[in-house]
Amino acid sequence: MDIKLVSSSNKKKVIDLGNGVKIGDGEFTIIAGPCAVENYEQLEATAKFLNKLGVNVLRGGAFKPRTSPYSFQGLGFQGLKYLRDVGKKYNMKVISEIMDPRDVERAYDLVDVYQVGSRNMQNYSLLKELGNVDKPVMLKRGMTATVNEWLMAAEYIALEGNDNIILCERGIRTFENYTRNTLDLTVVPIVKSLSKLPIIVDPSHGTGMRELVATMARASVVVSADGIMVEVHPSPDNALSDGFQSLDFSMMNELINQVDILKKYMNELE
Amino acid sequence: MDIKLVSSSNKKKVIDLGNGVKIGDGEFTIIAGPCAVENYEQLEATAKFLNKLGVNVLRGGAFKPRTSPYSFQGLGFQGLKYLRDVGKKYNMKVISEIMDPRDVERAYDLVDVYQVGSRNMQNYSLLKELGNVDKPVMLKRGMTATVNEWLMAAEYIALEGNDNIILCERGIRTFENYTRNTLDLTVVPIVKSLSKLPIIVDPSHGTGMRELVATMARASVVVSADGIMVEVHPSPDNALSDGFQSLDFSMMNELINQVDILKKYMNELE
Amino acid sequence: MDIKLVSSSNKKKVIDLGNGVKIGDGEFTIIAGPCAVENYEQLEATAKFLNKLGVNVLRGGAFKPRTSPYSFQGLGFQGLKYLRDVGKKYNMKVISEIMDPRDVERAYDLVDVYQVGSRNMQNYSLLKELGNVDKPVMLKRGMTATVNEWLMAAEYIALEGNDNIILCERGIRTFENYTRNTLDLTVVPIVKSLSKLPIIVDPSHGTGMRELVATMARASVVVSADGIMVEVHPSPDNALSDGFQSLDFSMMNELINQVDILKKYMNELE
Amino acid sequence: MDIKLVSSSNKKKVIDLGNGVKIGDGEFTIIAGPCAVENYEQLEATAKFLNKLGVNVLRGGAFKPRTSPYSFQGLGFQGLKYLRDVGKKYNMKVISEIMDPRDVERAYDLVDVYQVGSRNMQNYSLLKELGNVDKPVMLKRGMTATVNEWLMAAEYIALEGNDNIILCERGIRTFENYTRNTLDLTVVPIVKSLSKLPIIVDPSHGTGMRELVATMARASVVVSADGIMVEVHPSPDNALSDGFQSLDFSMMNELINQVDILKKYMNELE
Repeated sequence: MDIKLVSSSNKKKVIDLGNGVKIGDGEFTIIAGPCAVENYEQLEATAKFLNKLGVNVLRGGAFKPRTSPYSFQGLGFQGLKYLRDVGKKYNMKVISEIMDPRDVERAYDLVDVYQVGSRNMQNYSLLKELGNVDKPVMLKRGMTATVNEWLMAAEYIALEGNDNIILCERGIRTFENYTRNTLDLTVVPIVKSLSKLPIIVDPSHGTGMRELVATMARASVVVSADGIMVEVHPSPDNALSDGFQSLDFSMMNELINQVDILKKYMNELE
Repeated sequence: MDIKLVSSSNKKKVIDLGNGVKIGDGEFTIIAGPCAVENYEQLEATAKFLNKLGVNVLRGGAFKPRTSPYSFQGLGFQGLKYLRDVGKKYNMKVISEIMDPRDVERAYDLVDVYQVGSRNMQNYSLLKELGNVDKPVMLKRGMTATVNEWLMAAEYIALEGNDNIILCERGIRTFENYTRNTLDLTVVPIVKSLSKLPIIVDPSHGTGMRELVATMARASVVVSADGIMVEVHPSPDNALSDGFQSLDFSMMNELINQVDILKKYMNELE
Repeated sequence: MDIKLVSSSNKKKVIDLGNGVKIGDGEFTIIAGPCAVENYEQLEATAKFLNKLGVNVLRGGAFKPRTSPYSFQGLGFQGLKYLRDVGKKYNMKVISEIMDPRDVERAYDLVDVYQVGSRNMQNYSLLKELGNVDKPVMLKRGMTATVNEWLMAAEYIALEGNDNIILCERGIRTFENYTRNTLDLTVVPIVKSLSKLPIIVDPSHGTGMRELVATMARASVVVSADGIMVEVHPSPDNALSDGFQSLDFSMMNELINQVDILKKYMNELE
Repeated sequence: MDIKLVSSSNKKKVIDLGNGVKIGDGEFTIIAGPCAVENYEQLEATAKFLNKLGVNVLRGGAFKPRTSPYSFQGLGFQGLKYLRDVGKKYNMKVISEIMDPRDVERAYDLVDVYQVGSRNMQNYSLLKELGNVDKPVMLKRGMTATVNEWLMAAEYIALEGNDNIILCERGIRTFENYTRNTLDLTVVPIVKSLSKLPIIVDPSHGTGMRELVATMARASVVVSADGIMVEVHPSPDNALSDGFQSLDFSMMNELINQVDILKKYMNELE
């Protein structure tokens, strides 16, 4: 069976986060922040820096899906509250992952965009719950999901009534073990031809290596993605999770510069 | 980090379902029934047949995780009630998949074993909820999960207090497209060397072709699996889901005969 | 396009190696020997042992396809000569891998079966050259080859005139990294339904761990493979290649005992 | 073991094809032409068109590695002669795939760059033969090869004495079946950090869909690839092989325009 509600036979969807922040309107949105919210200070310092660079969507994980139960699991709702507070302070929209359908309602006032992680792309209870709220959902691609499986997961959300969905490519599992995942940029034009939904790229998880993030961010602009989501940390080597793929402030600054130059190209191309 | 509670450094776990039905005690357990509970009559006819063959664990899906929201989604709690009623009538233990942590408590009186499906192997909210009940859990391997990721998922359940866990190999995703999945029988001796938990094999999902099920069931005996889970339907070609991989009664009868012969071999070998 | 010459619409093929050694006639053939021929003494000791156990096909690599050019590359034609000499001494048939079409003619008097390795499954120049000799060819499955691609490779050989082809399943590449490859036993009944060619299983490469070889050899009998190919070394820990997956003599002895018991089962089943 | 001769610890390699055509000198080289040489007229028309656009390296397959022996196998040496003649007429350098080590010498005067296809990345006899000629070799990545396996294959060539090697990313096999392969652009910066060799991208095989080729060509510029190889055909829908991924002249024209705009960006970035 085919997708219906999220198919490209419908009008292109622009996701409005409020305060003039939109995803899918032709602008290239940069979402950035730490992999995990570790404490208020870490988050605040990151947001302060990003805000100066013009970034207006802040990410930060509070519920962390970790392979091992002995790894850092995130700060939970306390982390979401830090996110909300810091977001307000710097007038940034905030996004964070929710894993449990029971947390959707409680998190409603704490996030501007709900994120569904790769492991939960086919967690249908969660998808249905998110289909019943009136806030945007960012749906990450499953680790080995095909485009069809991914769009069908989006259809689950839309069918409940909420088609404010942003897709996020974050790399797929391949036999290449030099990188954490293999970023599939070809999926961007494919999704745009098949679906009405905007799509952003996560080059941090998609590569798992900070020295590759800026290069793949540039490529994301050029394949006409609607934005990127990037992990940034004040001190990546001391991060509680995924520090190896997090940019420090200096690298993030350089990334923004490169992306800005490329945006000019995209304008010239049109 | 390594597994602790479910590692083979602990005493081998035998899962006691009550009424003398045990998994992991050296016997080869056969779990069988329809992919989905479609109605009372279908389930009752299947159970009646299986019961005569000596099968004492009945499977039947009530919550069906389907790629498309437009596919048959199962009967939900009504399906679980049919399962409970039919199980009682034929004195069979029953197993069914739960996908939502909010359903765990309500399903408590309706199932003897909770099943976690492949798509939910890393649904940590669900795993933790199941770690807090005192009923066995069957944890299916994720579609591309490594052994380590799978055992770590079991560790999540055990860490909450419930180590009554049965692992179930159901095939992994590979490039071979002739079969639905590639059944990985080597994982059986590997799991037995690494973990205290019993492991059963699902040759129905593992192959996706009914004509291959009996052959792979035989092989499952020989690699020392603790049992198999097989899909059986009174009329596979009319099944609402996965009929192509379901056995009819005659094929199921033949499978049991073959397995019985092989069990003699296993006794001779020891 | 479909296979023609090697399809199951033709009469089942029995490969006659001479001296009464046949593959595909209903017997379960055991091919064994070292991964690589290292010197005369190593090979002679292995053959002497295997011969006592009733094994009558000896394997030994002379041209070794290694990922790194700095790894041991094999003894080349000198290795094939040792193989021929030892085979004659113990009246065993011999099989070895050829990688270069220019070596086919020169190796003609030195081997009884030419082996095509996984990396060369689609080396069409080599396949065509082997299609023009009147000796059997064992065609190993490519690392990520589908059944169709594999049978098409066999068709290349047959189309040149030589349909004395034995297929060999040796494990496919998957995301499971605990084992070297994932042995796909389901392919045995599939190949038997699609093709007239016999198929044997290589549990040594298929698992890459010596402690798993006997278990998967047992399973190979039960899925009706026509035989197995196993790596045996007088002193596996000192082997020049793949020692970790080679059996010592004691393990090989035990494997033969287990296989013999299972053969009785197969007779009972028919 | 690690790569030595092709590692980035050596001086960056620039491949000089003569007549001022260089790969790896900071320019972005466009190689283009039909998948297969079908006849003189088809090739001549393509070259005439490409030459006007400034393309100075012409591709065209004469030996076609096809999964089925019943598919069009190419014109062989006659195809290489057409390639040579047309190349001379338009003063273009020519590249074509060789599959058999016995053809290397005979093809010496017919090609400017030998191509090794994906299926032959680990055909060590062929690699060694090409290591002994004094012409450049383009080594395509194997369908599921890791970066390490790929660079090790290059090392085989270099170890024989020829380090005039161009790497070519052409997509890897993944579970995504919407595209023929998954183009792995991240491998470009990785290869540049690990190896001294230049790398070009093949977006035609890498996507298998003509409508995606220009987008991925643009992205190839931005990740700092040394060039692209693109399939172009006067009448793609009538091509004897891979027409679905071949550009017609109008699409090729547009691709060149887009690439030219991006090159300006790359200059601005440096």
